[in-house]
Amino acid sequence: METIVLKRHDSIKRVKTVGEVRKQIKKWKREGFTIGLVPTMGFLHEGHESLIKRAAEENDKVVVSVFVNPTQFGENEDLGSYPRDIKRDEVLCKKAGANLIFNPEPSEMYYKDASTVVNVNGLTEGLCGARRPVHFGGVCLVVSKLFNIVTPDRAYFGEKDAQQLAVIKKMVKDLNFDIEIVGCPIVREFDGLAKSSRNTYLSFEERKAASILNESLILAKKALNLGERNVGRIKDMINEKLSSEILTRIDYIEIVDSLSLEPVQSISSSILVAIAVYIGRTRLIDNFTFKV
Amino acid sequence: METIVLKRHDSIKRVKTVGEVRKQIKKWKREGFTIGLVPTMGFLHEGHESLIKRAAEENDKVVVSVFVNPTQFGENEDLGSYPRDIKRDEVLCKKAGANLIFNPEPSEMYYKDASTVVNVNGLTEGLCGARRPVHFGGVCLVVSKLFNIVTPDRAYFGEKDAQQLAVIKKMVKDLNFDIEIVGCPIVREFDGLAKSSRNTYLSFEERKAASILNESLILAKKALNLGERNVGRIKDMINEKLSSEILTRIDYIEIVDSLSLEPVQSISSSILVAIAVYIGRTRLIDNFTFKV
Repeated sequence: METIVLKRHDSIKRVKTVGEVRKQIKKWKREGFTIGLVPTMGFLHEGHESLIKRAAEENDKVVVSVFVNPTQFGENEDLGSYPRDIKRDEVLCKKAGANLIFNPEPSEMYYKDASTVVNVNGLTEGLCGARRPVHFGGVCLVVSKLFNIVTPDRAYFGEKDAQQLAVIKKMVKDLNFDIEIVGCPIVREFDGLAKSSRNTYLSFEERKAASILNESLILAKKALNLGERNVGRIKDMINEKLSSEILTRIDYIEIVDSLSLEPVQSISSSILVAIAVYIGRTRLIDNFTFKV
Repeated sequence: METIVLKRHDSIKRVKTVGEVRKQIKKWKREGFTIGLVPTMGFLHEGHESLIKRAAEENDKVVVSVFVNPTQFGENEDLGSYPRDIKRDEVLCKKAGANLIFNPEPSEMYYKDASTVVNVNGLTEGLCGARRPVHFGGVCLVVSKLFNIVTPDRAYFGEKDAQQLAVIKKMVKDLNFDIEIVGCPIVREFDGLAKSSRNTYLSFEERKAASILNESLILAKKALNLGERNVGRIKDMINEKLSSEILTRIDYIEIVDSLSLEPVQSISSSILVAIAVYIGRTRLIDNFTFKV
């Protein structure tokens, strides 16, 4: 109890350079502190807050990176309009128990002739990867860099980005990063909409409509709990529910193996039910896992 | 002086698992020791020895990895016949001042479904990369893994593999590895042939012929020192010399910018003169850099 109270009143430092992060990390490591990393693109919400709190429980020091990473956005995506508010982020980070915010400029992370690529084949080819061809390469690159800059003991990612979490776990295993990857449950709004920085794009009407994503997944989960094992019928059920809302445009409804992310023909092990849906011009994702 | 003597008589440990390496490294780091890594494919010669000695001078502890990395060999290359002799390697490592040999089985480094790729675009496209299309991807992958397993302060590579050295330096910069990459000069046989584990493939006649590589480079260097600045004429000079030996088959003769590895039209900055030549069925490489 005492420790947590102390942590919450610790001062928080915000730095912009790799050199400043390394200096602080080396100091902490010399003192024997463990380090948790929460990589974010900022405009933090309760989902991020849950990651930071978990990191603060499990590590002596918590670093939050706030960086809208250009390499994970495609040409026609929302890099320019992605919401930013570092002052607000800093308040949330401090309250949640973070000790250091790394908030670099793009030029600190990338330079003109940078040409190294990191990617996870296979896992990145379906789901969001199929629609966003440069996305996961950008994620793997920036996360590799953040891992090498912060050298954390643990790193925290939300289960809302289920494919990202699977990709990062695979990358860590394949490249022998000595880092424990911790996935944290989806945090939802009062009506079940998964928390996302992109929810701020929604108009009032769109925001109301957006609860349909989670509602459609709840239907599917109920059917699975009642013994439904037909992949087509579960997809149809989700499709029907989503289509009942006029503002939706379905990007994908997929049922895949939760480890390989390959589409399953029958439901016999651990599966991931994942959807991506446009509400107006905003693309939202949601998912749940189910074990037979 | 005392320190070096003590180091040379230190016991050397040989381990086969990532877990054993990590355990030893963590112990050393807790004691405040700096760590040098010398990645090798074994069958060590005086070139490797010079890397290990340099590492022992500049670090408290030296790790030598001995691993014939399958992912950097193409289908028709010499993975199966690559020479191996771990007992001999161990003696050389100990004499040179190494403290730990990491000698994993391929199954310890790779598993069936591993699918993460690391590569440096651009730099890997010319020279040896053009002839060995999977080679540098395999090098980047295994070196990333070794860096994450050993987490050294410094890593040592020979300048004989000039393109490899440039690629690793770029990868370290692009991915923010906190590791100093140290390039070490080429070590040569009495007749100027660059030391290489692959020299053991050569028959007596081929071995005699192989000194032509270095001889052709000496001619080029002399011309450069005398003021020759015409790229074509220098290449012709090397070509003529190499062709005078009946056992040679030239793979490439290239003059490139020493940083970008792009072919130069005129000699106005720092250049790398690099050759690859088959002597019988054995492919050998050699190079030198020249600053105007």
